[in-house]
Amino acid sequence: MMHRRLEIWGIEGFPILTGPCDLPREIVAALGRARLPLDHGDVLVVTHKIVSKAEGRVVELGEIEPSPQARELAARTEKDARLVEVILGETEEILRAERGHLIVEQRAGYICANAGVDRSNSGGLGRVALLPEDPDRSAREIRERIREDLGKELAVLISDTHGRPWRNGAIGLCIGLAGMEPLLDLRGNSDLFGYKMTSSIECVADELAAAATLVMGQCDEGIPLALIKGLAFAPKTGSARQILRAKEKDLFR
Amino acid sequence: MMHRRLEIWGIEGFPILTGPCDLPREIVAALGRARLPLDHGDVLVVTHKIVSKAEGRVVELGEIEPSPQARELAARTEKDARLVEVILGETEEILRAERGHLIVEQRAGYICANAGVDRSNSGGLGRVALLPEDPDRSAREIRERIREDLGKELAVLISDTHGRPWRNGAIGLCIGLAGMEPLLDLRGNSDLFGYKMTSSIECVADELAAAATLVMGQCDEGIPLALIKGLAFAPKTGSARQILRAKEKDLFR
Repeated sequence: MMHRRLEIWGIEGFPILTGPCDLPREIVAALGRARLPLDHGDVLVVTHKIVSKAEGRVVELGEIEPSPQARELAARTEKDARLVEVILGETEEILRAERGHLIVEQRAGYICANAGVDRSNSGGLGRVALLPEDPDRSAREIRERIREDLGKELAVLISDTHGRPWRNGAIGLCIGLAGMEPLLDLRGNSDLFGYKMTSSIECVADELAAAATLVMGQCDEGIPLALIKGLAFAPKTGSARQILRAKEKDLFR
Repeated sequence: MMHRRLEIWGIEGFPILTGPCDLPREIVAALGRARLPLDHGDVLVVTHKIVSKAEGRVVELGEIEPSPQARELAARTEKDARLVEVILGETEEILRAERGHLIVEQRAGYICANAGVDRSNSGGLGRVALLPEDPDRSAREIRERIREDLGKELAVLISDTHGRPWRNGAIGLCIGLAGMEPLLDLRGNSDLFGYKMTSSIECVADELAAAATLVMGQCDEGIPLALIKGLAFAPKTGSARQILRAKEKDLFR
């Protein structure tokens, strides 16, 4: 009996980035050192933190002068006013600011806590990392360099871990993508009994990012790359923006 | 270099259930036929649909007489009034009923569309499947039977695919669990640079369910079981109810 099988490898040995760098080159080098077989159709998941650091999206809190609005919001949410100033600079719209939480629509359209601005693994105690400017572009650049240097057509995902309504615990999600469609549209397919499925769209990209997070870990393990083998998908341009629900179609803003 | 590695197997050849049955026995038999090596610490993910069918949680819509409230809600959400009657029977609280959507807190505490009542793969065009009565109990029963019959200590997860706010596409999530903690609490751990992570709880159970959904598929492929190998976790009792955020702590009800 042939079973469908995925393999997910956490790629060890990626260097700790201390400043901006040519991330696609570092990733190609890490894939080479990893000595894993690389195949067309593999999916490479890259945690956004190394993308942000490589792209210089790191801010020293000590250099930030908080505005009156940031001070007011900081008091209301019990956060560092300088951090809130940075968050506001990344914010399109505030959804909730209460009980220690600041949930916003980040400039690229992601709804998440603190606009994705994050203290952990940012390279020092007074530093925070912002989300990449354009995570789809970052994914495309990595994908193209792998194709040029290693001759393989991969899909590349940029991941972040987000909390969510109703459920405890954050999970890995996809915020940038190149080389595949993020959504698998099953509408019009039949189930086992001939029922036409009318509302079945699966977010494969988020499931891949969640799966990759299982091998990456979040703290001092520091595994920023995961390679997923065995997924069948059609190569497409794709964009993580397809995952974002339009504001007017959302019932929970 | 040793890389961390997960393997996820979709287990083929599970029979199509036509009525209530001893599901743990069917699962043990399917694991035997699958000829995969089974190890302590493997995670078995079971789609809730076979649990519901095995436990007789299937309703014939033809036998349902909708109440006036169901008829009113059905008109408002453009749904079958008999289906809405079934949904209301499974509902603790209605969160949204508009624009074709009925988002509720299901009796077991899950917030999802239609209280998890589902037409696809329910065994016939006029039939719908409800969520299992107590998915943790279902997971425990499967886990215990595997331990008794096959001598292995697994974690068992019951999965469902849910839509979510802000993001298009449903993903696999955990609604029942036995044998592990669903949440990995990283608070107090240090990141690479010594920063103490204060809000890092990862929902490993949801990430596992999402990963498993990648090999299960949702329509006529019909792969209701996935085996995940290579995750390191401490055996614990655990409950998927730990994933449910308390109502008073939720900002998006």
